[in-house]
Amino acid sequence: MDQPLLQRDTGRGCCSCRMLKQWLPILSWLPKYNFKWLQMDLLAGLTVGLTTVPQVLAYAEVAGLPVEYGLYSAFMGGFIYALLGTSKDVTLGPTAIMSLLCFSLVGGEPRRAVLLSLLCGVIQAALALLRLGFLLDFISFPVIKGFTCAAAITIGFGQVKNILGLRDIPHEFFPQLYFTFHKISEARIGDVVLGVLCIALLVMLMTMKASLGSDNDATRFSIAARKFVWAVSTMRNALIVIAASFCAFSWEAFGHHVFTITGETSQGLPPFSLPPTTDTTENGTVVTFGEIVEGFGGGLAVIPFMGLLESIAIAKAFARQNNYRIDANQELLAIGVTNIMGSFVSAYPVTGSFGRTAVNSQTGVCSPAGGIVTSVIVLLSLALLMPAFYYIPKASLAAVIICAVAPMVDYHAVAKMWQIHKLDLLPFIVTFLMSFWQVQYGIIGGVAVSGALLMYTLARPRIKMSNPGVLLIQLGSGLSFPAAEHLSHIIHTEALQVSPPRSVVLDCHHVSVIDYTVINELSDLLRQFKHQDLLLILSRLQPNVLEILLAADLEDFRYADTIETALQWVKETPIFDAGRVQPLSEEEVVARAQ
Amino acid sequence: MDQPLLQRDTGRGCCSCRMLKQWLPILSWLPKYNFKWLQMDLLAGLTVGLTTVPQVLAYAEVAGLPVEYGLYSAFMGGFIYALLGTSKDVTLGPTAIMSLLCFSLVGGEPRRAVLLSLLCGVIQAALALLRLGFLLDFISFPVIKGFTCAAAITIGFGQVKNILGLRDIPHEFFPQLYFTFHKISEARIGDVVLGVLCIALLVMLMTMKASLGSDNDATRFSIAARKFVWAVSTMRNALIVIAASFCAFSWEAFGHHVFTITGETSQGLPPFSLPPTTDTTENGTVVTFGEIVEGFGGGLAVIPFMGLLESIAIAKAFARQNNYRIDANQELLAIGVTNIMGSFVSAYPVTGSFGRTAVNSQTGVCSPAGGIVTSVIVLLSLALLMPAFYYIPKASLAAVIICAVAPMVDYHAVAKMWQIHKLDLLPFIVTFLMSFWQVQYGIIGGVAVSGALLMYTLARPRIKMSNPGVLLIQLGSGLSFPAAEHLSHIIHTEALQVSPPRSVVLDCHHVSVIDYTVINELSDLLRQFKHQDLLLILSRLQPNVLEILLAADLEDFRYADTIETALQWVKETPIFDAGRVQPLSEEEVVARAQ
Repeated sequence: MDQPLLQRDTGRGCCSCRMLKQWLPILSWLPKYNFKWLQMDLLAGLTVGLTTVPQVLAYAEVAGLPVEYGLYSAFMGGFIYALLGTSKDVTLGPTAIMSLLCFSLVGGEPRRAVLLSLLCGVIQAALALLRLGFLLDFISFPVIKGFTCAAAITIGFGQVKNILGLRDIPHEFFPQLYFTFHKISEARIGDVVLGVLCIALLVMLMTMKASLGSDNDATRFSIAARKFVWAVSTMRNALIVIAASFCAFSWEAFGHHVFTITGETSQGLPPFSLPPTTDTTENGTVVTFGEIVEGFGGGLAVIPFMGLLESIAIAKAFARQNNYRIDANQELLAIGVTNIMGSFVSAYPVTGSFGRTAVNSQTGVCSPAGGIVTSVIVLLSLALLMPAFYYIPKASLAAVIICAVAPMVDYHAVAKMWQIHKLDLLPFIVTFLMSFWQVQYGIIGGVAVSGALLMYTLARPRIKMSNPGVLLIQLGSGLSFPAAEHLSHIIHTEALQVSPPRSVVLDCHHVSVIDYTVINELSDLLRQFKHQDLLLILSRLQPNVLEILLAADLEDFRYADTIETALQWVKETPIFDAGRVQPLSEEEVVARAQ
Repeated sequence: MDQPLLQRDTGRGCCSCRMLKQWLPILSWLPKYNFKWLQMDLLAGLTVGLTTVPQVLAYAEVAGLPVEYGLYSAFMGGFIYALLGTSKDVTLGPTAIMSLLCFSLVGGEPRRAVLLSLLCGVIQAALALLRLGFLLDFISFPVIKGFTCAAAITIGFGQVKNILGLRDIPHEFFPQLYFTFHKISEARIGDVVLGVLCIALLVMLMTMKASLGSDNDATRFSIAARKFVWAVSTMRNALIVIAASFCAFSWEAFGHHVFTITGETSQGLPPFSLPPTTDTTENGTVVTFGEIVEGFGGGLAVIPFMGLLESIAIAKAFARQNNYRIDANQELLAIGVTNIMGSFVSAYPVTGSFGRTAVNSQTGVCSPAGGIVTSVIVLLSLALLMPAFYYIPKASLAAVIICAVAPMVDYHAVAKMWQIHKLDLLPFIVTFLMSFWQVQYGIIGGVAVSGALLMYTLARPRIKMSNPGVLLIQLGSGLSFPAAEHLSHIIHTEALQVSPPRSVVLDCHHVSVIDYTVINELSDLLRQFKHQDLLLILSRLQPNVLEILLAADLEDFRYADTIETALQWVKETPIFDAGRVQPLSEEEVVARAQ
């Protein structure tokens, strides 16, 4: 299916050239690069950069890591994605969900987080090279929704302790819930006031941006005012964090410690070094590579997929909006290589960020080169601004996160599922609830439940029975091995074991595949119908199914082209009462059916 | 579906009475019991008993347990099945496959084997009470065949060392293969001669029985001669083992140790006691219940199912032959209770035995009471014959096993699969090969592969494209969430991204279920078709699918009753070229479609 399109896309280039362009999409857009694009990419990169820095500091907090790890993880993506990415909008870097997953797997151990990034990248790159991106198809929409809702609540609630200025709160959701309320009397007034103020300002700026409306609707604002509002609201995270930091700096300068602040951070760029493969616990014992990997367990299967899922969902959304196509396997490769290379600069696992990708797209980015600008800004922050980060109040970062994840709680989707297809609420609820226990188990549980529901539809196809003279059984959908025994049971109870037993016409119009188990069961049924001198006739077989059935060379196999022919035929055939009548040969059957 | 039949079966009895008869099938047949049945049941029970004793001694050897454990496991089934079983023919007891599975899980530790029986019984009884017997539907025929072929080869080859009289051969298949050939020079001539002779005699008697033909064909033998041949060949196992034991006894009496014999066995009936819940290793450390269960691992999921599978397959085969129906969940209960009760008398896991059930049926058993007679014979052997078992040559037991499992290697099934449906060979081969590694992994691997193939058919339904003016896409089968992205991809590459882009008619005639993920994808597609001023029309929707789509209230959703209407409609609608034309309302759509 792909072939014609690819040919169309790349013109009449030679095969190896086309392959190269497929693996290195930069070769497709770099020759077309021009000054206009450069301007737009610079502007978009700068804007995204100012969103990125405060956000990733906050996400490092979600991952339980020192804040500088957020920045360490935020710059590699821009360079790699410019080479390998297929979407102009996507921005790779730490995200709320990956940070939560990373925390739930490594519990805030920096060395393990970096090793996780390496392993995650290797798995993703391997999946990409094996073209296994299609595995994503098995994660259904209700599972994704259940997971994102639960993750948003976990992440958002996890920041309430920072808004309240509480200390020594455990990281797991349920103990956290308990201790946050238990210690609420210890809340620090400075943090609470600042946190609530930041949230209020962020919500206000978000609302303002939303109320700008479309560009054509220029009645309420002059163009300059619109641009100003847009710029302020787009850079709201940076502005809020800077303002809060100035505020904290002033109070600290006068010796008043009213806010919980970030405190000491590592200075400068991360070292470029081999990722760690062992870890040392607090009491000095060395944990080997094998033991660490064993500790990751099933999470190691979940994280690479969730990273891919998040990024693909985002890339697809913007590809639709801006009318281009992405290649899932190539995206997977870009994320995988980013995670591998990231592990050399102390990054934890990253993926496409929805919020920053949206900012990128709205600022009018023209190519993945915008990401390079963003990366440079992150690097500059690391090199020059780290001392200033000392004064960032934790409550302001918490406000940034809460406002970022709040829209992920999607009530409408639940209402829609209830209205349209209630059964889809089951995987949703299982994923949602299990995610509070362990976020990766939520996904696994949800995928298992939606798989079981699929299997159930295969095992129990809708079967309609009617009685126009003989028993007519109409199969509502396919007939694969899990349904074989069920169908046999129905035919037994409804045709062979009633008194008097009756012949059956089986309408196979909707049966598109058939397998050996079903054929075996059919062969048994045919034998029993013959034994009781009754007929079992298959009708309206699809050509490929008929071919397989003829190859099986079943004894007494009869089929008709229409239900009417089959019914007519059963009525014409007398019940053989004395002795065994020779069954019709296949040619006679065909002849009678015509 | 069941309700009408059950009512018919049990007449107008009250509800609780019918329930009781369903749970205790003995209540259905005991009132009808008569002298004729008693005669037949006595004869059948006696015949089966004479087959059972030598067979179960041999199967204990397969399970790596002392021979008396075979007898300990062989009598409980007769009593329990008489109360709870739904088939008159099935005989519960040790089988070759369960012995092999038991060995692969417990490695010949008697205490653990008994505990395994308890756990296996509890799981089976729980599955029965939860009516989960249907899970069996997910084990396809190729998986069953692959497993039985591999098991037969493993079991059969495992006895070659006894035919050769070799010692200290490891139990695992591949080391066993190596050492059997490596040590072949140490073969003991007495054992080889006896073993080969026993096999030759057994094969001869089997062939004689097969050549007897049907009862009506009385030309070649007088009735008395036929009966004699039948009796000898039916009791061939017992006769061969008794003859070989006499032979061994005579040589031993003269002080010649030419045969490897069974040696010391425990005397008398097993004690009735609580099943062991802990174990002690050779160096005295106590292994707790939890550790033992952990050691069983995934095998604990496989054994109860394999037990059920074997028994149900047998019960169904004879139910067909003798024209009655069995109840899978009730069978499961009978096996489960047998295994639970068995663990109180030192039994290892048991299930329905094909060979002995066949003997039972052919001897003309009339009710499950025949099993009680068999059990009494086993108990008598335990009480009185144990000293005689000292002299049974291991080579004769090996011959019994080899002849019992040889017919399980089914070449024809493989040939049939190749001829009919080659894809079914994949789960067969995976199961077959993995079973040599660990027999339970074979089943798990095979079920996983056949599940993956099923999923593949769901994820990549057959899609037919044609171009009668516009693009007509015909879905070959259902449309569930794994296929959503694939369909969307095809529509994009074939309709939206070609130049010029074209409208699409989607033929949903075979689509019988639809879920929220698919609806979401459809909603996206509809938006993009609208964006490009094109039409996406669904046609020939099944009523329940249409209902769900209407409930989803999709923007721009259009459907037609026939493909022709849809095609006509696309042709009539001009490509909206200037500005956005208001889409047709749902009423207009319906009106146009009619």
